[in-house]
Amino acid sequence: MIYFDNAATTFPKFKEVYEALEYAGVNYAFNAGRGSYKKAKLILDMIEDTRSKVSKLLNSTSDRVVFTSSATEALNNLIYGLIKEGDEVLISPFEHNAVVRTLHNINAKINIIPFNKDLELDEVKFKDLLVIKQPKAIIISHISNVLGYMLPYEKIFSIGKKVNTINILDAAQSLGEYDIDINNIDIVVFAGHKSLYAMFGVAGYLNLTNVSLKTIKVGGTGSDSLNLDMPSIMPYRYEAGTNNSIAIYTLNKAIDVITKLDIKKHKEELTNYLISKLKDIPGIKLYLPKNSLPCGIVSFNYKDYIANDIGSILADDYDICVRTGYHCVPFLNDFLDLNKNKGTIRVSFSYFNTFAEIDKLIDALKGME
Amino acid sequence: MIYFDNAATTFPKFKEVYEALEYAGVNYAFNAGRGSYKKAKLILDMIEDTRSKVSKLLNSTSDRVVFTSSATEALNNLIYGLIKEGDEVLISPFEHNAVVRTLHNINAKINIIPFNKDLELDEVKFKDLLVIKQPKAIIISHISNVLGYMLPYEKIFSIGKKVNTINILDAAQSLGEYDIDINNIDIVVFAGHKSLYAMFGVAGYLNLTNVSLKTIKVGGTGSDSLNLDMPSIMPYRYEAGTNNSIAIYTLNKAIDVITKLDIKKHKEELTNYLISKLKDIPGIKLYLPKNSLPCGIVSFNYKDYIANDIGSILADDYDICVRTGYHCVPFLNDFLDLNKNKGTIRVSFSYFNTFAEIDKLIDALKGME
Repeated sequence: MIYFDNAATTFPKFKEVYEALEYAGVNYAFNAGRGSYKKAKLILDMIEDTRSKVSKLLNSTSDRVVFTSSATEALNNLIYGLIKEGDEVLISPFEHNAVVRTLHNINAKINIIPFNKDLELDEVKFKDLLVIKQPKAIIISHISNVLGYMLPYEKIFSIGKKVNTINILDAAQSLGEYDIDINNIDIVVFAGHKSLYAMFGVAGYLNLTNVSLKTIKVGGTGSDSLNLDMPSIMPYRYEAGTNNSIAIYTLNKAIDVITKLDIKKHKEELTNYLISKLKDIPGIKLYLPKNSLPCGIVSFNYKDYIANDIGSILADDYDICVRTGYHCVPFLNDFLDLNKNKGTIRVSFSYFNTFAEIDKLIDALKGME
Repeated sequence: MIYFDNAATTFPKFKEVYEALEYAGVNYAFNAGRGSYKKAKLILDMIEDTRSKVSKLLNSTSDRVVFTSSATEALNNLIYGLIKEGDEVLISPFEHNAVVRTLHNINAKINIIPFNKDLELDEVKFKDLLVIKQPKAIIISHISNVLGYMLPYEKIFSIGKKVNTINILDAAQSLGEYDIDINNIDIVVFAGHKSLYAMFGVAGYLNLTNVSLKTIKVGGTGSDSLNLDMPSIMPYRYEAGTNNSIAIYTLNKAIDVITKLDIKKHKEELTNYLISKLKDIPGIKLYLPKNSLPCGIVSFNYKDYIANDIGSILADDYDICVRTGYHCVPFLNDFLDLNKNKGTIRVSFSYFNTFAEIDKLIDALKGME
């Protein structure tokens, strides 16, 4: 199997992560608890150690790291905790349904940040939009899960701060692999099982500037039980129920591994190679940013074929796994005209992909000519 | 280590569950997807097979089973999806903060179902309360996580139905081990890592009567991406983001094991034995229902000692793990007078506990005299 669906979840994981899963299943499957039995204290220490490792990825501190079960849950809790009906919010055309459907669900006013067809920010229109809408928040991806496009988040957030927007960066496709300049960012969302190479069950956000949030996920905290409100102490105020210590331990060990590697560089080389090869195939339409390199994710179509039909042939005849369709990005179709192909064919890389795998994909596509 | 904190999470798990964790980490850590590559289809089939196994525990159907990451998330989503500010809701005095804090968080009107000090339902007062409040919902535990008390849910729910309450049973401490009569129940909540002996990361609810719920958890569903609402098809309407297929597979295998065993009987025997032994120790105060046997969970105190101090001695000197305090049940203190002891000492059993372990606990407690 050739696996090119790493934007959905990275596969394989590092051997240290598989070992961590197995070890934690036996040794760390307890509820964390201060002032309790040894195992409970051990779990608490391990979780706090992981929190510290996550915080260091963004030069922050442990108390700013809130764990959730998924990036979807993180974005749900953040948006419900911050935005109310009628609030103006700016997002990019590349945002995922974890953001868009959540905003839509509470009837927030969704405004799309203007980009041109070359994926360049239209700064003038963007500034106009900011002045007119005075949005409460800007929520954008660091790297688009469809196009691999790295958004100019520094520029967008610094301009936004002039009207005091709360700036949220969805780094589900990047934290762990790509550096993030936290200047002007209030909150960063991460997904453990994607660019951080952990197992399912751990994700979260860093509330870097301690933005005030309503509590959404509430429940038992193992302390302060008689208080009907969540305890005030950070980050526990935003974590209810049993932490998934097994998944958290896989993240702990994954961070140790990935911080020693230059995964970004390898993905850049793979991306360059894939694009150069795809450009040689007649009938391939690439969706590329004009002035930057996609970051490990490339979307394309082949002639007028339905993207999913190409995906099925690649899967069934070549055992090559790609993702096809609209990739949970509802405004993409307004931005790129994808009706004919019903979405795109998406190739997304991880540390484990090779140039030889790309050659096999290229041969497969050429075989369809 | 003697582990008596199974109401928090069962430990150990069955060897089939450890094997499932290891296997799924390598083989099932993919995103589920119809019409995609082989692994994605395989995950989807496995998840649907697990859904079917869960549904059979309550003679229901797969489409009624919604998976969440934890019982807390299930209760959050249900309450937010069903109850709005000012709605009258009835709960028992034994409900967990996953219920109470969630109701409090949206300013629902919380009414406590009247029980007397012998843990008997006061039927007359209960009926009066129903008539006066005309509550939208009744939310009660099947088995109290503090007292092991099995609530008379059949009676409560059948009386409630006369004023058309939506009846929700929190079976976090029971599904998989205890039978549930689903007559008059609308929704049953379960926790994978407790009485179902799965790993962290899978829980959920069965919407047995298809109660209409607002969507709370929203995000990507891998299909219908251009629709800003969640897809209408059940149960996918209520599941956003990547399912935790690793945890779900451990639940799949756990159900195979536990449905072949009579765990209830073993826990009853342990409970009887523990109570009889505790009654022999002067200074032990037991919190027992008058006319029924606690179900695998026993709460007690020892003289006027702070519960947590006894817990610490048991942990540090005897390597016995119990839970102490208020157990995330805020109204318990109004019901039982626990101020002096600051909560209770709670022993909770699983299939793996033995009579010999109970003897060691009894010896330890006697050693403190």
